Amino acid sequence: MDNLRKLFDPKSIAIVGASEEKGKVGKAISENILNLGYEGKVFLVNPKHEKLFNRECYPSIESIREPVDLAIIAIPAKFVNQAIQNGGDSVKNFVVISAGFSETSEEGKKLEQELLEIAKEKKLNILGPNCLGFIAPKIKLNASFAGGLPNFGNISFVSQSGAIISALLDIASRDNIGFSNIISIGNKMSLSENELLEYLENDEDSKVIGMYLEGIKDGIRFKEIAKKISKSKPVVILKAGKTEKSQRAISSHTGALAGSEEIIKALFKKTGVIRVDSLDEFINTMRLISLVNPPANEKTAVITNAGGPGVLATDAFSGKEIKLSELDGKTKEKLREFLPKESSIENPIDLLGDAQEDRYEKTLESVDAENIGSIITILTPQENTPFDKIAQKISAFKEKTQKTIVAVFLGGKKIEKSVEILKNSKIPNYTFPEDAINALDKYYQWEINKNKIDIRGNAIEIDKNKSEKAENIIKNARLENRTALYFREAKEIMDIYGIDTIEFQEVNAEKELEIDFPMVMKVDSDKVLHKTDKQGVILNIGDENDFREAYQKMSENFPKENIIIQPMQRIETELILGIKKDETVGPIVIFGLGGIYTEIFKMVDFLIPSVTISEIKETILKSPIKFLFEETRGQKAYDIENVADILLKLSVLAENLNEIKEFDINPLLIYNDGRKSLAIDVKIII
Amino acid sequence: MDNLRKLFDPKSIAIVGASEEKGKVGKAISENILNLGYEGKVFLVNPKHEKLFNRECYPSIESIREPVDLAIIAIPAKFVNQAIQNGGDSVKNFVVISAGFSETSEEGKKLEQELLEIAKEKKLNILGPNCLGFIAPKIKLNASFAGGLPNFGNISFVSQSGAIISALLDIASRDNIGFSNIISIGNKMSLSENELLEYLENDEDSKVIGMYLEGIKDGIRFKEIAKKISKSKPVVILKAGKTEKSQRAISSHTGALAGSEEIIKALFKKTGVIRVDSLDEFINTMRLISLVNPPANEKTAVITNAGGPGVLATDAFSGKEIKLSELDGKTKEKLREFLPKESSIENPIDLLGDAQEDRYEKTLESVDAENIGSIITILTPQENTPFDKIAQKISAFKEKTQKTIVAVFLGGKKIEKSVEILKNSKIPNYTFPEDAINALDKYYQWEINKNKIDIRGNAIEIDKNKSEKAENIIKNARLENRTALYFREAKEIMDIYGIDTIEFQEVNAEKELEIDFPMVMKVDSDKVLHKTDKQGVILNIGDENDFREAYQKMSENFPKENIIIQPMQRIETELILGIKKDETVGPIVIFGLGGIYTEIFKMVDFLIPSVTISEIKETILKSPIKFLFEETRGQKAYDIENVADILLKLSVLAENLNEIKEFDINPLLIYNDGRKSLAIDVKIII
Repeated sequence: MDNLRKLFDPKSIAIVGASEEKGKVGKAISENILNLGYEGKVFLVNPKHEKLFNRECYPSIESIREPVDLAIIAIPAKFVNQAIQNGGDSVKNFVVISAGFSETSEEGKKLEQELLEIAKEKKLNILGPNCLGFIAPKIKLNASFAGGLPNFGNISFVSQSGAIISALLDIASRDNIGFSNIISIGNKMSLSENELLEYLENDEDSKVIGMYLEGIKDGIRFKEIAKKISKSKPVVILKAGKTEKSQRAISSHTGALAGSEEIIKALFKKTGVIRVDSLDEFINTMRLISLVNPPANEKTAVITNAGGPGVLATDAFSGKEIKLSELDGKTKEKLREFLPKESSIENPIDLLGDAQEDRYEKTLESVDAENIGSIITILTPQENTPFDKIAQKISAFKEKTQKTIVAVFLGGKKIEKSVEILKNSKIPNYTFPEDAINALDKYYQWEINKNKIDIRGNAIEIDKNKSEKAENIIKNARLENRTALYFREAKEIMDIYGIDTIEFQEVNAEKELEIDFPMVMKVDSDKVLHKTDKQGVILNIGDENDFREAYQKMSENFPKENIIIQPMQRIETELILGIKKDETVGPIVIFGLGGIYTEIFKMVDFLIPSVTISEIKETILKSPIKFLFEETRGQKAYDIENVADILLKLSVLAENLNEIKEFDINPLLIYNDGRKSLAIDVKIII
Repeated sequence: MDNLRKLFDPKSIAIVGASEEKGKVGKAISENILNLGYEGKVFLVNPKHEKLFNRECYPSIESIREPVDLAIIAIPAKFVNQAIQNGGDSVKNFVVISAGFSETSEEGKKLEQELLEIAKEKKLNILGPNCLGFIAPKIKLNASFAGGLPNFGNISFVSQSGAIISALLDIASRDNIGFSNIISIGNKMSLSENELLEYLENDEDSKVIGMYLEGIKDGIRFKEIAKKISKSKPVVILKAGKTEKSQRAISSHTGALAGSEEIIKALFKKTGVIRVDSLDEFINTMRLISLVNPPANEKTAVITNAGGPGVLATDAFSGKEIKLSELDGKTKEKLREFLPKESSIENPIDLLGDAQEDRYEKTLESVDAENIGSIITILTPQENTPFDKIAQKISAFKEKTQKTIVAVFLGGKKIEKSVEILKNSKIPNYTFPEDAINALDKYYQWEINKNKIDIRGNAIEIDKNKSEKAENIIKNARLENRTALYFREAKEIMDIYGIDTIEFQEVNAEKELEIDFPMVMKVDSDKVLHKTDKQGVILNIGDENDFREAYQKMSENFPKENIIIQPMQRIETELILGIKKDETVGPIVIFGLGGIYTEIFKMVDFLIPSVTISEIKETILKSPIKFLFEETRGQKAYDIENVADILLKLSVLAENLNEIKEFDINPLLIYNDGRKSLAIDVKIII
């Protein structure tokens, strides 16, 4: 991935499709690269011109006799592949601005497929196609057709929508936000969020990475890469396309497959990604992370010159990881010394409406002695409030303290200048307390989660021979053109992975059976998947007579099919466990309440492999079935260790046995009297 | 309430505590009233001066020999009551700016109590104490100590926090928001949100009423008043103080009792109040309502020049009442005629990044033919986007159309001028699509809910004699110093209200019993409230022998207490119903799943009387127990009519019998086989 450095930090650039013609993308790009201060070499390529912008113009990439780090392609789609085919011998990095690829038509899709093959063959890095380009403010390079050059800063912004970049640039220019990279990924043909995360992980200029995504291209790789980078750098993602409707809007737009909302949410949580739900929250969060250090702990103090906003701030802490902390007695004493008696020395500290800058200053200093992570300073513009002086005091204090300082200057016109002072001091300021607290909380959540991110999951050693045996069972069934395994085969796989499964015997005329009554008789066939609905299960067979009758009936109903018997179990508490394949993230492990409740209460949750035991237990204890594992009125807690262990085994199985399409343990009987859980029925669809 | 007109639209004002001294509140108020264009008569009152601001100064209110509509009091708390006592004969309307009343100390509470008595005795309207005052831009009157005069507009803003007014004024001056009234209610001693809602209902200048509240003063009155006004005017409330912590912050601030979050939420829904959760949402919603008519229907079209914001907009519709509507085939044909082929003619309509003003204009006109309520026009500032011209086209279109037009100009610096154009055309513009869609949805929700608001609830005629009898039962139990009713009494009340309750007999030595086995024996005493826990219930008594044994045991365990017997019921599906008294809104009716599930699943919901049958059914069908009333796999639906009827009776009972502290029907057996529900145990705490 280090060769992406040459793409995003090139010493020389060729602009293919350079133009002086008004309204042409090639003109905007040429001007952006030539006029904004980029100091590398620039070669203009356009076979129709000998000179453009008073510079030599080349007919093709190949005709340039000097090294070119990057070629930007802004010519009609139909000419793109040829240009890259020819240029790809000397140049290895391309940005394809041109639209007209997979986002438009079947023809475009073919074109893109062809381009991908060229890229593979010639080992090229290609950003796009159908993208806005990228901007690298540090080297004053705007290799896009969006105008202007934003400030250099520490935010890398990667976007699947060019227009969101345009909008963000305009907001940034008003709000003084600085960027290390702005990258439009367009159709994500070969460089997607994954490759960019890998690249940006090692980009020293980037403190925080923000991404606007409409789909995750390869969830399984994303999972690994995002986990790794999240351990060192915060990644903030606005994932659009949540509803079915907006997924439709997407596929007409970039052709990306949007993943199901819940799974994406779990994926982000698992990988330590900071998830935001609106553009506003996205900008608010990136801005905060860009400017401050993460809070050292969850404790937060709020200082305000008015009660109302203090109450709103208090409300905003509800459900957050950061907390309004109880102040130390000593601090309160100190505050009491200089604050008027009507003021509140409880957190939020209310300095009252007539507070001058000295009250803010002294309060900040007093609170600094507390073992808290953050201080939020609220100001409302009241009659005699010296906005600017207070902003200066906060700025001065920020230079001295280790704490995370955030400001909420609640107003508009009057406070414009004081807001400017805060901006220049790199203090994140928000108009509304809710926004400040939310952004601070997002950053803190990343900070505490990053050390919990597990890169590998818990390994369970499955003997290699056994693991191959499991694979062979599936292979054989395939060879027999079956879409489901027999219970015998399923049980063998369960045994290999160490999940206790009920005993069974196959019934046939030749074999003697050892029968303990009562028992259950079932048809076991890939043709009868919903056994109960089709009368393929007979419960409570009490004696030999019943048994003969049942076998008679079964053989008639399901001639030539396997018939098995199992000991009858007293049904107490049932779970259902399963494996489902998600298009984006691969196999996921589902668990929930079984029995008659399954449909009505829909008490299910899921895990994304790989997982650790502690992650599994945490998920169970936040899931809708957590009540089973808590001592409640008249109920002993069920054995969470045992259930977690089974879920771990199932998650390893899900990763190992990739050919499994669906997997159901229904029911798994669980106990709270020391017995181990037992799988009663197992269905494996291949 | 019509006399409040004189308070908020006075022809003459006395300023008590007028001053020229820097930093004094009396100076700020005097200058605001004298210098901003108010044309009524102004009398300055201050016994220490003969002249102030080059005007005559009066020693007291009484010494003014002309009619005074309103006196504003800005003197130390300890002098306030005397001044109003003396002035209250000639002046009937007061604004008490002075702090130092119930918000501070016990002494202040007494002072406020005294002031309230003066107000009652002399029939005075008093705003405050401890308030910022009020502003009436139409008559250029700023009767507060906040600076400046906002634009005249159609928003009435009522606030329990003066600082929120200061902040909002400053935001408004930047965003061009206009007000009809800005009223600070301070301690809400006699004029609270209720009186102001009554007044503003008839204020023709106010189209929308926004309130920042930290508590509801009299929920029972609020319920009636808010229902009434919501039928004609939207009321938007930001209710702060949701969490326990912020409730603490409040009580140190104004002494208001904050209500429990869920109940307030239900109260607002019931009364048609538009509830917002943050200051940002508050301003966004008021601004939209102020400028546009409510959407004629839920259908919404989105026009955008970029895919990304279109996807974000689509996401934002999720869970909303307003919907992205499918466009008519004819409209699509029309759009296809002039839009480039890469554009999307599905909703959101994507005009593409190079769209000029003509594409916006023609698209708006084409979509205008659709039967939709609203059009949201999104613009991102791309390279050749003519922002200002597009803003002008939208403005021109807005003048011609009946549809609700909202703009989302997504940017900062570049689009400043075009945003100004939208402001001047009174088109609500938002930076982010989520905010626009949310505000529009809030307004539409009000529009469709307002006709559903029921002012009176369903009346159930309870015979007057019977109703008195029920009251007498409670009175008698009180006379006997009991805190709970006997089952006999409870059943009598249930019978009066027509709720079927199980038969019973009292057991004592003298009386012959008619016994059907199996049966249940219970102790019936206000001293044994948790019967089951204390072995006060014996189930499944099967024969005479069992009965004698049981009675023996009961008499020993509970000597001198009432013993009753009831037929044993087969337990199938159980509900629990009850009445709880909420501090803010009075009695509420609770219902939920009974039996062993009660504690674990906590499937409960509640109703605020008075209610209609349709409101009850709607609530049930949105509650966690809705599944009981739906046909599901292997379960017939339970009888919702019967359960709703019982809840209606219970809600009438709750309103009629005010002395009841708690009321439990546990269990109520419900059926899905035609049988009527039956109350098995009833506990009434008085």
